[in-house]
Amino acid sequence: MSPLFLALIERLICEMHKMTGKIRVGIVGASGYAGGELLRLFASHPRAEVVRIAGESKAGATIGSVFPHLRHSLTLEKISEKPFWTDVDAVFFALPAGQSFELVRRYREQGVPVFDLGPDYRLKTPGLYRQVYGMEHGDPLGLEEAVYGLPEWAGDRLTSSPIVACPGCFPTGALMGLLPFFREELVVEGSTVVDGKSGISGAGRGLSLETHFPEIGEGMAPYKLLDHRHVPEMEQCLAPFGGGEVTFVPHLAPMSRGILSTLYMTLRDSLPQEAMEAVVDRCYEGSPFVRRVSSPPNPLHVRGTNDVLLYVRTRGRRLVVVTAIDNLVRGAGGQGIQAMNRRFSLPETLGISAPALFP
Amino acid sequence: MSPLFLALIERLICEMHKMTGKIRVGIVGASGYAGGELLRLFASHPRAEVVRIAGESKAGATIGSVFPHLRHSLTLEKISEKPFWTDVDAVFFALPAGQSFELVRRYREQGVPVFDLGPDYRLKTPGLYRQVYGMEHGDPLGLEEAVYGLPEWAGDRLTSSPIVACPGCFPTGALMGLLPFFREELVVEGSTVVDGKSGISGAGRGLSLETHFPEIGEGMAPYKLLDHRHVPEMEQCLAPFGGGEVTFVPHLAPMSRGILSTLYMTLRDSLPQEAMEAVVDRCYEGSPFVRRVSSPPNPLHVRGTNDVLLYVRTRGRRLVVVTAIDNLVRGAGGQGIQAMNRRFSLPETLGISAPALFP
Amino acid sequence: MSPLFLALIERLICEMHKMTGKIRVGIVGASGYAGGELLRLFASHPRAEVVRIAGESKAGATIGSVFPHLRHSLTLEKISEKPFWTDVDAVFFALPAGQSFELVRRYREQGVPVFDLGPDYRLKTPGLYRQVYGMEHGDPLGLEEAVYGLPEWAGDRLTSSPIVACPGCFPTGALMGLLPFFREELVVEGSTVVDGKSGISGAGRGLSLETHFPEIGEGMAPYKLLDHRHVPEMEQCLAPFGGGEVTFVPHLAPMSRGILSTLYMTLRDSLPQEAMEAVVDRCYEGSPFVRRVSSPPNPLHVRGTNDVLLYVRTRGRRLVVVTAIDNLVRGAGGQGIQAMNRRFSLPETLGISAPALFP
Amino acid sequence: MSPLFLALIERLICEMHKMTGKIRVGIVGASGYAGGELLRLFASHPRAEVVRIAGESKAGATIGSVFPHLRHSLTLEKISEKPFWTDVDAVFFALPAGQSFELVRRYREQGVPVFDLGPDYRLKTPGLYRQVYGMEHGDPLGLEEAVYGLPEWAGDRLTSSPIVACPGCFPTGALMGLLPFFREELVVEGSTVVDGKSGISGAGRGLSLETHFPEIGEGMAPYKLLDHRHVPEMEQCLAPFGGGEVTFVPHLAPMSRGILSTLYMTLRDSLPQEAMEAVVDRCYEGSPFVRRVSSPPNPLHVRGTNDVLLYVRTRGRRLVVVTAIDNLVRGAGGQGIQAMNRRFSLPETLGISAPALFP
Repeated sequence: MSPLFLALIERLICEMHKMTGKIRVGIVGASGYAGGELLRLFASHPRAEVVRIAGESKAGATIGSVFPHLRHSLTLEKISEKPFWTDVDAVFFALPAGQSFELVRRYREQGVPVFDLGPDYRLKTPGLYRQVYGMEHGDPLGLEEAVYGLPEWAGDRLTSSPIVACPGCFPTGALMGLLPFFREELVVEGSTVVDGKSGISGAGRGLSLETHFPEIGEGMAPYKLLDHRHVPEMEQCLAPFGGGEVTFVPHLAPMSRGILSTLYMTLRDSLPQEAMEAVVDRCYEGSPFVRRVSSPPNPLHVRGTNDVLLYVRTRGRRLVVVTAIDNLVRGAGGQGIQAMNRRFSLPETLGISAPALFP
Repeated sequence: MSPLFLALIERLICEMHKMTGKIRVGIVGASGYAGGELLRLFASHPRAEVVRIAGESKAGATIGSVFPHLRHSLTLEKISEKPFWTDVDAVFFALPAGQSFELVRRYREQGVPVFDLGPDYRLKTPGLYRQVYGMEHGDPLGLEEAVYGLPEWAGDRLTSSPIVACPGCFPTGALMGLLPFFREELVVEGSTVVDGKSGISGAGRGLSLETHFPEIGEGMAPYKLLDHRHVPEMEQCLAPFGGGEVTFVPHLAPMSRGILSTLYMTLRDSLPQEAMEAVVDRCYEGSPFVRRVSSPPNPLHVRGTNDVLLYVRTRGRRLVVVTAIDNLVRGAGGQGIQAMNRRFSLPETLGISAPALFP
Repeated sequence: MSPLFLALIERLICEMHKMTGKIRVGIVGASGYAGGELLRLFASHPRAEVVRIAGESKAGATIGSVFPHLRHSLTLEKISEKPFWTDVDAVFFALPAGQSFELVRRYREQGVPVFDLGPDYRLKTPGLYRQVYGMEHGDPLGLEEAVYGLPEWAGDRLTSSPIVACPGCFPTGALMGLLPFFREELVVEGSTVVDGKSGISGAGRGLSLETHFPEIGEGMAPYKLLDHRHVPEMEQCLAPFGGGEVTFVPHLAPMSRGILSTLYMTLRDSLPQEAMEAVVDRCYEGSPFVRRVSSPPNPLHVRGTNDVLLYVRTRGRRLVVVTAIDNLVRGAGGQGIQAMNRRFSLPETLGISAPALFP
Repeated sequence: MSPLFLALIERLICEMHKMTGKIRVGIVGASGYAGGELLRLFASHPRAEVVRIAGESKAGATIGSVFPHLRHSLTLEKISEKPFWTDVDAVFFALPAGQSFELVRRYREQGVPVFDLGPDYRLKTPGLYRQVYGMEHGDPLGLEEAVYGLPEWAGDRLTSSPIVACPGCFPTGALMGLLPFFREELVVEGSTVVDGKSGISGAGRGLSLETHFPEIGEGMAPYKLLDHRHVPEMEQCLAPFGGGEVTFVPHLAPMSRGILSTLYMTLRDSLPQEAMEAVVDRCYEGSPFVRRVSSPPNPLHVRGTNDVLLYVRTRGRRLVVVTAIDNLVRGAGGQGIQAMNRRFSLPETLGISAPALFP
């Protein structure tokens, strides 16, 4: 091609960008791993850019000084000073329980869509929230209007709700594998066992002896057995299909990223392997991120992506489904961007379609 | 102390050793990880020494050239030449299925106790063996006389049977946690789920893409779901207590050693946490290797040892037990030595009581 | 924006693509880790697409069945049948020494640019090639015309040579840190020590006991000390600046990706820290991929990227430079794409500018 | 053997122990990794037992609650209350710089041998100590009497000095490989480069972002380049042989234990490979812990042991020696016990001769 022609195209693209503009994104809670992952992903998103960020302990620092892999020169504003940005088109929150109510409410009132990676809008009633998180819900109205943002299951509300409550990392891995079978009423109530194995970034960037390299590096450990806050989230999603109680044990595995979820169900009736695979295929037909695989999945195969790998094995009335996701992409930032893409009528995979980093 | 006195003692110890002698041990299958672990452990055993070894692919080599951590200068004899040693007091086998029958039978007929780390004498009937391993059992008489050597559960037969069939690594981790509750008839038949996570040495020293560092190093993967040969071994041990079917999924985790087993059971009746802990304590009172812990166990905490860590959590009728073992010690060589110690009326912990290598 | 407007833009983009077309790329040697990385990177490249691939042992298979992270449905043609593609605009080679001559020569004669990730065109003379690789060079004319493709140092020849010989992974990490100081004639001849630490993907996808997880997973090991084939490559690049001999020891470290190179030099005269940093800054001013950092670099910080991190410390006449790269991107596929971008007058960072996957 | 005979022997052994007694050991600084390692090793030592321990932050806790791998029920006394034990035969210190002076002095005055794993008595003069650690030395008399306890090089003073200053982990790995060649005056002054790779336990049990699993788990990083406090320690040991300056860069590698040291020297004259190997063999003939290997060493091969692996490669005037040790055994506790064994006229390897834990 002639340089002239190339220059012409560049000019054209430039003009189009001027016309169309980019979605201006703000991130509240940008200094943890989930925030860092949003920044990483948005850096490659052709139709959105991060223009405002806030953090607490690192307020005043640039992103480039907080994350060694990012060159971003944006400066973190202080969360406790309640930054309310009027120059953003969408806001992502990645905060611990109870810290986002006030700001979310203001954005909601202004009509700015909120994508919350934290737990505040996931549970359906203030009562359940109080029970699980031990405090009053600070925005019951918002809670009512929020949608639980598991994209393949959220339906049209995903594009209209003022608040998208992005599922936790473990519920995402579990529900994507459980829901197809519950939806078709194949599973015995209360029979579900979820054995989750998470990379250690799932425990966050805060320091603890449990995540000190020599204490976990060549071993692995369960934690919060039968008592993890993600259980009510799973149960409420299965409830419409008579799911009953979910037995859940999470484990820390000596890898940085990824969640492997081994899901055990008891079937109402014994069904052949092919029928079980067909359930999955039917359910996720046309879903660009979901892939049923015929050999055992490994989170390495989706590292850095928004993909969900699904593997099915059955014998008699026992059904085992294994899912593999990246906890920071599909389990946090990527899933939020997937929801944002749908909300803004963009292609669902825009900016989150790069293949996995393997090996 | 005076040098004279020290010398006197040395002399005395020397004389005693001459009188008492050491148990002369042979190992058939000494070049794999289980064999190497036997050699490592016997090197510190005060009352036994390895005097004969055999391997197949490495025949003719010294142990020191096969294992970089051992200085042993013993030479591997060739298994396929069926070495029958007349100068040993005990023989350990660590061979794949179907390869040990002929030699085991000869040792059995000579009254030399056999400790088999392989699978050939674990299943109780030739019919079951055929079904699981796809070949005829070559020593049905031996099978009848063999004892399943889970030391804490084998009873007196451990000291009299000509053949001790040491349990597989996954069954060891699972059964130590399941049996106490089945023995007291607390568990609903067929409700057992065993989610096993093994270090990669469990897959052996043979090469495969699945154990090539870049393919597993920063991820993890299930394998042989619902179809692992260790399932019948677990089921036959639970059968006397009405165990029913066991649902088992093993996983490879990116660590070299260790097995973490997460065991899910449904209780017949809801019982409080303390009652469940009491079941374990009653069952293993006086067992030197078993330790119930009150914070989540990690295989790192037993690395290199014959110990079993047990952790119990219950909620409603759900019971979760987690066990941590070293797959090569408690799951192979160490358990065999524990059985040998009992067989030769030595203290059960002799030579296998060193604390874990942590971190 | 209105859906009409969006549709219009899509239409426009589509038309532009039709006009401009994409660079059609072929890959010979696509089933190893370097080939897989090219496929991963090209999947996100807006102006190039892989249309032909060849492999040897996996010939006939689709890429999706060879690599668990890629969905690509292209089928591998057989290398030994010497596929000569007439429908490609550029060809990448990723083959072991001695296997690319015949095909490269044909592409060269046809005027199709070749980007060779293998070692065949890196050394400047047939004599040196014979000495290092123990065989005759099969394309001396090509060798003469080839350019050593370290992009920041290759100059204009990068855009005109028919063959770009992409540097080996270790030489890339070393030379990027050494050359700035040699160019300014600051370093004593023969004083260079290169201590390289590579992730295990650097050893390739072929199996060996050295890369079996339990043998390397929790340890590390040097190999080919003072005798690695990358040494002559380093020495010939330093020769114009009076570099002299390079002392090089590579190590395998228990991580999948990345190379950390610790480079030791003796300065002719003692110079302050700031002066040394200025040397780097002068040298790489305007280079989009090179970043001098002020805290110690880690290959994790560039995982999946074409970036080079540089860190400088000096004391007296001792100078230490540490560089961190991703061995499969900057050390193989990514650097090749950087060269291709320049060759085709595209922005140098096109398709290889996504931030690192951290953590 | 008859039970009667066995009982008789047990009786005899028991009597002997009563007569001979065990060495009663105290440990000041028992809650860090070095202290934990002493406790692990002494648990298998037949002639010594730990009877007193002290720690600071964990004072009042039992060892079993501080370390998940130890069952010890001893309680930690508070270091800041300056516990001076009159019922011990030997005291080990494992404290940071500047915290041991007062107590060490008192033990020294009482004639109780001190084995200090900390840095306070390693440098030969108070002036050098001040320069390196930035504070006054609190026990100059002790410093004068102390011996630098690299056992193979300390000579007879090891058995007579009141204080054994056990070398740091990096100096141990480096000096064991450097000294043989310096002693024979083969090396050019100032040419030494030490590139050290340490397992992360070397950074201690205290938390930091640098040792948080996701920040280091799949990467590696240098630290304190040219500025580590272990440099003066190395230089003072080489000084008698005209060693000159040592260039040292330590790195954290993603493994829990072990140090691999790659040592680069320039020879005064070129000498063949065999001659270099002979230097090592001559030097360490009869040393039970040192082993020259003919294939590249890996710290995994000595994990948990007091061994030193040595590997030698030379080309022209370049000499590379690689050593592998366990940083917590040979680099801390084990080396201290080796010194104690010699001090108390016990066999040098007593209690520290178990083979490595591999894999």
